[in-house]
Amino acid sequence: MREIGRTARAAAAKLALASADAKNGALLTMAAMLRNFHEQILIANAEDVDAARKAGRLPYFIDRLTLNPARIEAMAKGLEDIAELPDPVGEVIASWTRPNGLVIERVRVPLGVIGMIFESRPNVTADAGGLCLKSGNAVILRGGSDGLASTRAIHAAMVAGLRQAGLDEAAIQIVDRADREAVGMMLAGLDGAIDVIVPRGGKSLVARVQQEARVPVFAHLDGVNHVYVHEAADPEMARAIVLNAKMRRTGVCGAAETLLVDEAAAPANLAPLIGALIEAGCEVRGDAAARAADARVKPASEEDWGTEYLEAIIAVKTVAGLEAAMAHIARYGSQHTDAIVTEDDAAAERFLREVDSAIVLHNASTQFADGGEFGMGAEIGIATGRFHARGPVGAEQLTSFKYRVRGTGQLRPV
Amino acid sequence: MREIGRTARAAAAKLALASADAKNGALLTMAAMLRNFHEQILIANAEDVDAARKAGRLPYFIDRLTLNPARIEAMAKGLEDIAELPDPVGEVIASWTRPNGLVIERVRVPLGVIGMIFESRPNVTADAGGLCLKSGNAVILRGGSDGLASTRAIHAAMVAGLRQAGLDEAAIQIVDRADREAVGMMLAGLDGAIDVIVPRGGKSLVARVQQEARVPVFAHLDGVNHVYVHEAADPEMARAIVLNAKMRRTGVCGAAETLLVDEAAAPANLAPLIGALIEAGCEVRGDAAARAADARVKPASEEDWGTEYLEAIIAVKTVAGLEAAMAHIARYGSQHTDAIVTEDDAAAERFLREVDSAIVLHNASTQFADGGEFGMGAEIGIATGRFHARGPVGAEQLTSFKYRVRGTGQLRPV
Repeated sequence: MREIGRTARAAAAKLALASADAKNGALLTMAAMLRNFHEQILIANAEDVDAARKAGRLPYFIDRLTLNPARIEAMAKGLEDIAELPDPVGEVIASWTRPNGLVIERVRVPLGVIGMIFESRPNVTADAGGLCLKSGNAVILRGGSDGLASTRAIHAAMVAGLRQAGLDEAAIQIVDRADREAVGMMLAGLDGAIDVIVPRGGKSLVARVQQEARVPVFAHLDGVNHVYVHEAADPEMARAIVLNAKMRRTGVCGAAETLLVDEAAAPANLAPLIGALIEAGCEVRGDAAARAADARVKPASEEDWGTEYLEAIIAVKTVAGLEAAMAHIARYGSQHTDAIVTEDDAAAERFLREVDSAIVLHNASTQFADGGEFGMGAEIGIATGRFHARGPVGAEQLTSFKYRVRGTGQLRPV
Repeated sequence: MREIGRTARAAAAKLALASADAKNGALLTMAAMLRNFHEQILIANAEDVDAARKAGRLPYFIDRLTLNPARIEAMAKGLEDIAELPDPVGEVIASWTRPNGLVIERVRVPLGVIGMIFESRPNVTADAGGLCLKSGNAVILRGGSDGLASTRAIHAAMVAGLRQAGLDEAAIQIVDRADREAVGMMLAGLDGAIDVIVPRGGKSLVARVQQEARVPVFAHLDGVNHVYVHEAADPEMARAIVLNAKMRRTGVCGAAETLLVDEAAAPANLAPLIGALIEAGCEVRGDAAARAADARVKPASEEDWGTEYLEAIIAVKTVAGLEAAMAHIARYGSQHTDAIVTEDDAAAERFLREVDSAIVLHNASTQFADGGEFGMGAEIGIATGRFHARGPVGAEQLTSFKYRVRGTGQLRPV
């Protein structure tokens, strides 16, 4: 492990100065290699899947672990997309001239070494490896033990790309061991070799990482996201947004978990919204008003307001108006993504201003909480911290900056 | 302590939405109150200084602790300057429209609650309190026990300003107790009430904070800053920059600690640079070439290359050229502030690009490492971390951001 940290740090120093062409060349070669190696990758993956089945893993777990030609093609295409993104490193973010003639620039630089800890989703090796490379960072990848053979096979394609572009192979390394001690060492920063940890996986993984990490973590623990249907909402738009926010994909972190409906418009809105959700296959748990509106609604408990279901269940509550809706979100939300549906611009502006979440939306689905949908290209995850990376974490969020100052002999007066 | 945390968190939520006028009004009232209260502040300070003298504190410590009318005026003026700065909160940093018509804005929001831990510099109460208020953050101030009476008196003026502007008085709180347990609780985040810790003081304080804090820290531990005199330097400019970088003020974090001189130009540059430093009252510790150039130079040990003297001592080393200079800085530097002096623009550009420090300068003094000199107005300190705040930490660096998304009913396609 120490050797991995040491070589990653050295690779990061070199990669920070690599040209955009070298990095993009490596990404394109990696994509080609994934396609070339696809048989070996599928064979390795079949081993992993077999073992996971024998170990009695649940179907959703097996599904995430399983690769097929389309998923390998998606990884390859993802790397090509990353190659197309503008290079964030060296970008001048701001520039100004001081009265004494000093020209100050704030310019993007890589973060250093990213430690990626993920569960059995082999595609993370390609996605995170590509994004870290693009942003000039070395990465140490520690995937779940169930996917180790797949990870190794994908990693081989990545290394081939680095080698062909003349880049340090230690820029993308995997921790090729299944014990949990390696994770502990990474969370401790690997003797200063790791600058940031990015976890990808279930809540228990993220919780452990956030609890134990001694280095910064880019992550979100919960996505208890709200759609608030204001009294001045267009009913048809509200119906479409609520359905999309909850049901488009229920397992993503941008999925809505709670629906808030203004009392004033509840007679008109509540029954149709609940009916549409139930007909779409969603279980609805509600307060007294919701249950009165539709007999199929189950009673919601206090716990429901703070629950991220990640499945086809939604909690529904009536609120006394904008203030009450924002108070509910402040109390039960997770500062991830919250939306208001209204035709009243003043109410929308107050919601956008006052709700303290990484992403706040007006008249749009919470499922837009995604780096791709934001136009950032690939993303490594979504963060709800207030520091550095917040919201979708793409190549730009994997950078820091430095100040470049150009003078002509300026001295600072006493 | 818990009560302080709870009320600070509540104050932060309100302060995040306070108008620029209210905050600036409070700052101007605080300045007026500092002037009004200046007798009480001086009396309280005299108590502190007396006690510190009796406790045998060193002269530099007494100097930092001591207030006088000029220093109180400087605090008042500092608050007025902060009021003049643009309000960072609500500023739209970036804005773009997606092909589906969603308008996405990245907008500045406050960080939340800042925990400030400082040694016996009573002025930090006014400077940090003002900067945190401007940036919409609540602050919990824990000053050294030697300055407690002074801190209380200054804090009273700050609270009067908050009250007059109708802002929550809990927005600026002091920890009014002298035990060290309070610091430990703050470093642990005060049950989630503190978002970031900013230490102000000597290296042992910063080291303790960085070691023990369970929340992010904005700080720098060392400022082992280099001036590299390249072979193509203008000798007169080099002399002036080296003298200013080392001797303007030796105790500031932007002071130069090591002088690197190219071998190729050493015969011409070394003796005059060393002579000028010694004549200005600086002790010079050097390698063999430096000692050969001037008999007054003392031998430098390995330890000298990594030492932040913060006094009139400098380490001098000859290097084989640009690569060797950058390798020395990478090995011994602290990623704070480093400068090259040269007329060769290609060499300067390489230095600016490759040296991995928060601030890199060409033909200018390292003593420009300062928020005021950068045009940021007041600063709370300088950070060398790679996350969030790097370089001078001003009002803008005390903010985070959120995404505001405006739609017209957009749904995310499957």
